[in-house]
Amino acid sequence: MPQILDTADPDFEVAFAALLSAKREDSPDVDNVVAAIIADVRSRGDAAVIELTERFDRIALTPETLRFSPAEIAEAIARVAPEDRAALELAAARIHAYHARQFPRDEEWTDEAGATLGWRWSAVSAAGLYVPGGLASYPSSVLMNAIPAKVAGVGRLAIAVPTPDGQVNPLVLLAAHLSGVDEIYRVGGAQAIAAFAYGTRSIAPVDKITGPGNAFVAAAKRRVFGKVGIDMIAGPSEILVIADKDNDPDWIALDLLSQAEHDESAQSILITDDAGFGRAVVAAVEKRLETLERRAIAGVSWRDFGAVITVRDLDEAAALSNRIAPEHLELCVADPEALSLKTVHAGAIFLGQYTPEAIGDYVGGPNHVLPTARSARFSSGLNVMDFLKRTTLSKMTPEALRAIGPAAARLARSESLEAHGLSVLARLDRLNG
Amino acid sequence: MPQILDTADPDFEVAFAALLSAKREDSPDVDNVVAAIIADVRSRGDAAVIELTERFDRIALTPETLRFSPAEIAEAIARVAPEDRAALELAAARIHAYHARQFPRDEEWTDEAGATLGWRWSAVSAAGLYVPGGLASYPSSVLMNAIPAKVAGVGRLAIAVPTPDGQVNPLVLLAAHLSGVDEIYRVGGAQAIAAFAYGTRSIAPVDKITGPGNAFVAAAKRRVFGKVGIDMIAGPSEILVIADKDNDPDWIALDLLSQAEHDESAQSILITDDAGFGRAVVAAVEKRLETLERRAIAGVSWRDFGAVITVRDLDEAAALSNRIAPEHLELCVADPEALSLKTVHAGAIFLGQYTPEAIGDYVGGPNHVLPTARSARFSSGLNVMDFLKRTTLSKMTPEALRAIGPAAARLARSESLEAHGLSVLARLDRLNG
Repeated sequence: MPQILDTADPDFEVAFAALLSAKREDSPDVDNVVAAIIADVRSRGDAAVIELTERFDRIALTPETLRFSPAEIAEAIARVAPEDRAALELAAARIHAYHARQFPRDEEWTDEAGATLGWRWSAVSAAGLYVPGGLASYPSSVLMNAIPAKVAGVGRLAIAVPTPDGQVNPLVLLAAHLSGVDEIYRVGGAQAIAAFAYGTRSIAPVDKITGPGNAFVAAAKRRVFGKVGIDMIAGPSEILVIADKDNDPDWIALDLLSQAEHDESAQSILITDDAGFGRAVVAAVEKRLETLERRAIAGVSWRDFGAVITVRDLDEAAALSNRIAPEHLELCVADPEALSLKTVHAGAIFLGQYTPEAIGDYVGGPNHVLPTARSARFSSGLNVMDFLKRTTLSKMTPEALRAIGPAAARLARSESLEAHGLSVLARLDRLNG
Repeated sequence: MPQILDTADPDFEVAFAALLSAKREDSPDVDNVVAAIIADVRSRGDAAVIELTERFDRIALTPETLRFSPAEIAEAIARVAPEDRAALELAAARIHAYHARQFPRDEEWTDEAGATLGWRWSAVSAAGLYVPGGLASYPSSVLMNAIPAKVAGVGRLAIAVPTPDGQVNPLVLLAAHLSGVDEIYRVGGAQAIAAFAYGTRSIAPVDKITGPGNAFVAAAKRRVFGKVGIDMIAGPSEILVIADKDNDPDWIALDLLSQAEHDESAQSILITDDAGFGRAVVAAVEKRLETLERRAIAGVSWRDFGAVITVRDLDEAAALSNRIAPEHLELCVADPEALSLKTVHAGAIFLGQYTPEAIGDYVGGPNHVLPTARSARFSSGLNVMDFLKRTTLSKMTPEALRAIGPAAARLARSESLEAHGLSVLARLDRLNG
């Protein structure tokens, strides 16, 4: 049974605080192991990558076979069912259309002092996308990572995907192909992150690394952060559904289960202003759990981390939602737009009963790589800007320097930075006579 | 003497690669120390912060005196010279005007499938700014961190500044006051970062931490990243000046020294297409080093990390600049705009001989918190977006769900995520029957 809470209960605040702080991931401290792997890849390059891949993925590679060949990719793509390919192409087209709108504009203007100011955006030269292997190898995640990078104009796009026992999902290779990925390496774990960050003879280094991964990948991304850019440290998936009684309990149950089935550490929470509806959803979940293919995983997630919270009204729901700062937020209420204006801390919002979160996982258009573990308080889902950087521009005319230079010199003096001041004053001296 | 390189020399590539990879910071591995400090602050809160502050900054605080009182701030501000205040106010106004233009727009549209899509920006609720203490305590850095946060609409803005032996720069408190900072704590180091990230009884936690700091601060920011957002891991300052012979060697020398005087690990590089001009600049630097107040620091930086590179032409200069990806880039050439279009990897570009980098440190308008150590390849200077996050929005109509839902269900099936598919199919069944 999930937790059943009611804001009217005297002990609600205690229970809710506990729910918020519940540690869902028993992320082992793999920091030392990862540090050793990174050091090994830095010093021995390909040899280290190949040995580690043999140990962890049980496949023997050579510098030549680290990377999928065009023939291997074509062969895998040929095995994809036409219906799957069509669905993936629809998803790619919609994701591209959404992200194309995110491209920011350059600006330049001249201010009253006569200074010309502005900024210019440019793409990172090379990006590496990590794609988990095995069960959690999702072609949709390839599209969600690669398409924003391509839209940004990244010159070189590489993927690292572990292929345990040589297994790879052909749809992953097709997704990479559809989104314009240039290189695909059958490498995973911390060794893949190290190879992307520092490079080896066969794997050129990249400037930015994105994509989800296990505890080893997360720890490696944290360690190489600064040497290269990273997106975020991804945790288990979450959904918060805010629903009134005018919903089909089974639809809401399936939405909750669509997160729960990801992972035993996933979290699904329902907030409703109708206790009876909440009970109906719990019953519907139990019923679906009798037959769901992934009922073992979903059942544990729902039992350990699921929650149903009854609130007095939707304002209370919005306040709780902002404290949860959910990765996915479904608003199944009469006026979802109005409620969405109050739920400001969320990775992605799905409005209305005809927008199940699963639409956003595949074909909606917005990115499905989203901030987890309450990080929507301060971060955004993956987007085009993750693959761009902004260079600021300034140009002073002699008049502009005369106007604002003295203040700069004064502040430099106050910070005891003489050369800073002199670099301005030497120019002003010339200009002033 | 700085390194003197020439792209025409056969061994240039080797020497330049060595220059690029030169490790400038002997950043000690303080990871374990920092981990212990963070754990201590998490478990003992104020008590730990107070003990650590007494140990590192030699001042005895209480929960009541951790935070500067309004009276203390007013008293300090009253001691600021009117000329300093005026300069700081000019800087604040210009920085605000520049950053106000960075605020991004929300978007919403309906696509051909009938889906309403878009995104909405919102500010983080609380931000903590770290301000180094002692010599490196710069009021300008307070403005550069706090103003973008205020422009973004951050609700609560806190500053942590160590006050070794009780010393604090009154201009730092004035800068905080001018930029609308709500709380100022006399705490520094990893303990300040831990208090911001996890909170104590006297210091409420924040959602985002920005600002430069020493190796302890950097390691602490890296560790709390994910629990809160951080800006970047800042390294020693750098400048690259690309100058032709039609410049005053003394002006360029002062620009190079304005970075060198920051820190013995700072780096100043000149690229010129005229070897004679390069020699003249080296001579001018030597002359200035005879009298410069901070000649000890600047001299070591120039000797150990300074470089003068002669190139065949400006295209070669641009190519080298992109490999260096400098924090600050000065373009003192006949057509700086044209050259700036080729130098895409840089934190901030200063165009023309009347735009010394020091202008950007104080009053230009763009931010002076910029990516160092080649991270301009993948990251941007501090800006308003660092204090905002984007929530994506999707709303399907029944027609839109009919149009794209089947593809989502198909992909969910291919990823063996049954509940994802059922959450779409259950709705389609109702709509279609």
